[in-house]
Amino acid sequence: MGPEALQFFIMSVTAAGFGIAIAAVGCGIAQGMGLKAAVEGIARNPESSGKVTVAMLIGLAMIESLAIYTLVIGLILIYANPAGETVTKLISGCPQRL
Amino acid sequence: MGPEALQFFIMSVTAAGFGIAIAAVGCGIAQGMGLKAAVEGIARNPESSGKVTVAMLIGLAMIESLAIYTLVIGLILIYANPAGETVTKLISGCPQRL
Amino acid sequence: MGPEALQFFIMSVTAAGFGIAIAAVGCGIAQGMGLKAAVEGIARNPESSGKVTVAMLIGLAMIESLAIYTLVIGLILIYANPAGETVTKLISGCPQRL
Amino acid sequence: MGPEALQFFIMSVTAAGFGIAIAAVGCGIAQGMGLKAAVEGIARNPESSGKVTVAMLIGLAMIESLAIYTLVIGLILIYANPAGETVTKLISGCPQRL
Amino acid sequence: MGPEALQFFIMSVTAAGFGIAIAAVGCGIAQGMGLKAAVEGIARNPESSGKVTVAMLIGLAMIESLAIYTLVIGLILIYANPAGETVTKLISGCPQRL
Amino acid sequence: MGPEALQFFIMSVTAAGFGIAIAAVGCGIAQGMGLKAAVEGIARNPESSGKVTVAMLIGLAMIESLAIYTLVIGLILIYANPAGETVTKLISGCPQRL
Amino acid sequence: MGPEALQFFIMSVTAAGFGIAIAAVGCGIAQGMGLKAAVEGIARNPESSGKVTVAMLIGLAMIESLAIYTLVIGLILIYANPAGETVTKLISGCPQRL
Amino acid sequence: MGPEALQFFIMSVTAAGFGIAIAAVGCGIAQGMGLKAAVEGIARNPESSGKVTVAMLIGLAMIESLAIYTLVIGLILIYANPAGETVTKLISGCPQRL
Amino acid sequence: MGPEALQFFIMSVTAAGFGIAIAAVGCGIAQGMGLKAAVEGIARNPESSGKVTVAMLIGLAMIESLAIYTLVIGLILIYANPAGETVTKLISGCPQRL
Amino acid sequence: MGPEALQFFIMSVTAAGFGIAIAAVGCGIAQGMGLKAAVEGIARNPESSGKVTVAMLIGLAMIESLAIYTLVIGLILIYANPAGETVTKLISGCPQRL
Amino acid sequence: MGPEALQFFIMSVTAAGFGIAIAAVGCGIAQGMGLKAAVEGIARNPESSGKVTVAMLIGLAMIESLAIYTLVIGLILIYANPAGETVTKLISGCPQRL
Amino acid sequence: MGPEALQFFIMSVTAAGFGIAIAAVGCGIAQGMGLKAAVEGIARNPESSGKVTVAMLIGLAMIESLAIYTLVIGLILIYANPAGETVTKLISGCPQRL
Amino acid sequence: MGPEALQFFIMSVTAAGFGIAIAAVGCGIAQGMGLKAAVEGIARNPESSGKVTVAMLIGLAMIESLAIYTLVIGLILIYANPAGETVTKLISGCPQRL
Amino acid sequence: MGPEALQFFIMSVTAAGFGIAIAAVGCGIAQGMGLKAAVEGIARNPESSGKVTVAMLIGLAMIESLAIYTLVIGLILIYANPAGETVTKLISGCPQRL
Repeated sequence: MGPEALQFFIMSVTAAGFGIAIAAVGCGIAQGMGLKAAVEGIARNPESSGKVTVAMLIGLAMIESLAIYTLVIGLILIYANPAGETVTKLISGCPQRL
Repeated sequence: MGPEALQFFIMSVTAAGFGIAIAAVGCGIAQGMGLKAAVEGIARNPESSGKVTVAMLIGLAMIESLAIYTLVIGLILIYANPAGETVTKLISGCPQRL
Repeated sequence: MGPEALQFFIMSVTAAGFGIAIAAVGCGIAQGMGLKAAVEGIARNPESSGKVTVAMLIGLAMIESLAIYTLVIGLILIYANPAGETVTKLISGCPQRL
Repeated sequence: MGPEALQFFIMSVTAAGFGIAIAAVGCGIAQGMGLKAAVEGIARNPESSGKVTVAMLIGLAMIESLAIYTLVIGLILIYANPAGETVTKLISGCPQRL
Repeated sequence: MGPEALQFFIMSVTAAGFGIAIAAVGCGIAQGMGLKAAVEGIARNPESSGKVTVAMLIGLAMIESLAIYTLVIGLILIYANPAGETVTKLISGCPQRL
Repeated sequence: MGPEALQFFIMSVTAAGFGIAIAAVGCGIAQGMGLKAAVEGIARNPESSGKVTVAMLIGLAMIESLAIYTLVIGLILIYANPAGETVTKLISGCPQRL
Repeated sequence: MGPEALQFFIMSVTAAGFGIAIAAVGCGIAQGMGLKAAVEGIARNPESSGKVTVAMLIGLAMIESLAIYTLVIGLILIYANPAGETVTKLISGCPQRL
Repeated sequence: MGPEALQFFIMSVTAAGFGIAIAAVGCGIAQGMGLKAAVEGIARNPESSGKVTVAMLIGLAMIESLAIYTLVIGLILIYANPAGETVTKLISGCPQRL
Repeated sequence: MGPEALQFFIMSVTAAGFGIAIAAVGCGIAQGMGLKAAVEGIARNPESSGKVTVAMLIGLAMIESLAIYTLVIGLILIYANPAGETVTKLISGCPQRL
Repeated sequence: MGPEALQFFIMSVTAAGFGIAIAAVGCGIAQGMGLKAAVEGIARNPESSGKVTVAMLIGLAMIESLAIYTLVIGLILIYANPAGETVTKLISGCPQRL
Repeated sequence: MGPEALQFFIMSVTAAGFGIAIAAVGCGIAQGMGLKAAVEGIARNPESSGKVTVAMLIGLAMIESLAIYTLVIGLILIYANPAGETVTKLISGCPQRL
Repeated sequence: MGPEALQFFIMSVTAAGFGIAIAAVGCGIAQGMGLKAAVEGIARNPESSGKVTVAMLIGLAMIESLAIYTLVIGLILIYANPAGETVTKLISGCPQRL
Repeated sequence: MGPEALQFFIMSVTAAGFGIAIAAVGCGIAQGMGLKAAVEGIARNPESSGKVTVAMLIGLAMIESLAIYTLVIGLILIYANPAGETVTKLISGCPQRL
Repeated sequence: MGPEALQFFIMSVTAAGFGIAIAAVGCGIAQGMGLKAAVEGIARNPESSGKVTVAMLIGLAMIESLAIYTLVIGLILIYANPAGETVTKLISGCPQRL
């Protein structure tokens, strides 16, 4: 395995680890904004608690989906990258070039 | 496969992994803004709950579409990049140049 | 194909993947601002729901168009770059220089 | 074609892909600001809907023009760069220097 | 073990250590926003304390999940990276190339 | 043409492509601020629509002029750079130094 | 121990030291936001002091947990990194390659 | 012409292209702030339209002057740089050192 | 001691010195926010002075704990790094390789 | 003229071109703030138009002076740099070292 | 003393000098926030002057402690770094390797 | 004159050109803040025009002094740098080492 | 004196010069915040002038202390660095290695 | 004088030129904040003009002192750096090593 072949796995790890972290920042703040508004609303008007909670959950779920997309891409990069197999074969088939 | 050929797959992985993460930040905050306004509105005026939810879903869907665009580009880069095939052939057809 | 020729496809991938992501951030936040105002407006004045939704959709469509421009440029870079053909010919016509 | 000649096309691709993305961020946020104000205005004063929509469209069109400028420069860089032809001739006329 | 093979573990460590830190920033601020709103609401309207606390906990849990995703990715990178095993075998099987 | 001579055209392309994009961000946001104020004003006071539109157009035109300056500089760099001719002559007159 | 093997411990130290610092920034500001709201609430409505303090402590604890995650990852990187043992053996078993 | 001599023209191009773009951002936003205030003022108090427009134009002109300074420096760098002539002579007088 | 072995102590010093500084920024601002709210509250409602001071001290202590974590990690890196001993032995046992 | 001697003129050009651009950003925004306040003031209180305009002009002139300082430094760097003459003599007196 | 050994002292100096500066920024702004609130409070309610001053001093002292931590670490790095002694011995004991 | 000696003049030019530009940004915005407040004050209370103008001029002068400090340092670096003379002598006294 | 030994003094200079500048930014803005509040308070309630001035001076002095810490560290680095003496001896004792 | 010795003067120049510029930004904005508050206060309450001016001058002087510290450090670096003398002797005493 040449140095560059290993570089492929290194970058996959980097993209997976930092990508989900960056997405967590944005989606976290977004959920925090929704949560803030929902909590303020319930505190002002406790009777609207049911409707507010439903709307909040719909919104949080859609924001969560964005983080899930990033998580899926990250897991694909770690566990199931199609290009990764090509590179792996190159590693096992050419041991003398380690 | 020369070092530069592998660089192509490395950069595809990087662009896919970080791209969706960056998009998640922006779209997440955008959905958070919409969600915040919707939840505040429902808490103030529970009777408008139906109309507000409909408008919110239209907006969230359009924002979600932006993240989907990025996701699609990312998946194309990982699974179906036309230039990737050209590079792959170069790998399999020239094994002696690994 | 020399190392620099491959660099062309690498940069196309990078520009396409990150470009749409950057555009998604800006357009997403922009749509979030419009959505926020629309939802607040409907919650305050449910009777204006029709007119507000129409104006919101016009604005969201124009913002979406900016992301579409970026998407189109990205797809051109991946699938239909005129300079890419020139470089590809150089690859196939000079296999002995891989 | 020497490595530097190819660098010209690489940078054109980069400038086109990232340029339109950066412009989309700024113009998108700008249109979002205008859209936000228009939607808020219509929701408060539905009778002013016609005049507000006209003013909004004038403004959105002028902001859109800025993104169009960037798009035009980007397409010129990809399809019709005068310096590009000079470089292309150098490529075809000097194949022995690939 | 060649220098590049070790680089794989180094980048895993970096991505795990900085990734969770970056996620902690975003999710922390997000939880702070929700907490702020909840505490303000309880102080203004102590009777709504129960409902507000429930909504706050739902939101904090969803934001916490984003940090958990990042933590899981980080632990996978440290303890159970599938590509890591491939690289480890290369280390033990080729001791003469240390 | 030596590598550095080509570097001249590369940097011209970069400056033109990114320059107009950066200008579009600033001028776009500026026009968005003006548009926002104008639309809000018309919605509040529809009778002032004529005067507001005139003032808005004057301001948008002056902001547009800044983007035009950048566009003009960018087109000069691509099509009519006086130093470019000097460099071009060096390319054609010294083909043996390509 | 080759230079790259030591690089592993260096990066662990860096990730541990800076990671907890970055997390402290985010979680600190988050706790500051919660604390601010709680203190303001108590000052306005001293009777709600008990409920506000309980809610504040729940929130601070959840935010603290994010910093604890980072601290744990940091301590794992310093004291109990599984990959670290592999590298350590390489150090002791191959003293002649120091 | 040695590589460094050409570097002079390259940097002139860069400074001219990016300089006017950076100035456009700042001056554009500044004009946007003035325009926003003027338009808001006219909408609130249409009778003051004349005086407001005069003050706005004075201010916009002074802000425009800052962009003009940058434009002038940029054009000097492209067309009339005194050091440029010195460098140009070096190019034409020493063709054998291209 | 090879150059890379010393690099370990250098990075420890850097992480300790900058880490506590970065943490001080975040925790300082956080404490400032809490302090600001507490002081404002006491000034408005001097009777709540006792309860406000208690809540403020609880919050400041929890924020201070984050800085303490960073300080502890920093001191561990300087005085008691387990990997540091391994590296130190390498220094004393191999003086001929200084 | 050695490569480093030319570097002197290159850096002068860079400092002049970017310096005035950076100054234009700051001074432009500053003038925009003053202009905004003046226009708002005139719109609210048209009778104070004269005094406001005088104060505004004094302020704009002092802010303009800051941009003029930068412009003067930039022109000195291009046209009248005392160190530049020393370097120029070195160029003309030592043609054989071009 | 090899170049890398000196590098240790250089980085200690850098971390000490910049670390205290960075901490001063954060703690300074934090104290400024507390001071601002205290001064505003005293101006509004001069009778609360005593209690406000006490609370302010408690807060300022805790924020000051964060800067003190950084100062202590900085002084340790300059005057009493345990690893520094190891490196110093290496310098004095091996003068022939200066 | 060796390459490094010239580097001294290059860095002086850079520090002078960018330094005054950076100072202009900060001092310009500062003067803009003062100007804004003064103009708003005069517009609201034209009778206070004299006292406000005096206070404004005192403040603007003190802010201007900061820019003057930077300008003086910049001019010293260009025209009267004591170290510059030392370096200049080295240039004239050792022409054979150009 | 080897190149790295001089590097020690260079970094001391850099840390001292930039460190006090960075600290001045933070402490300056902090003092500005305190000053702003004090001046506003005195203008609203001139009778509280004495108490406000006392509190302001206490706060400004504590913020000033942070800048003094940085100044002291900077002066130590320039005039009285203990490691500096070690390095200086190395310079004077080993002139033949200049 | 070796290249590194000159590097010492270059970095002194850089630190002096940029340091005072950075300090001017922070102190300028700080003075602008104080000035803004003072001018607003005088405009609202002209009778408090004397007390406000005194407090403002105290604050501006303390902020100015921060810039003076930076200026003093900068001038020390240019004119009276103790380490500079050591380096200068090395220059004059060892002319044969220029």
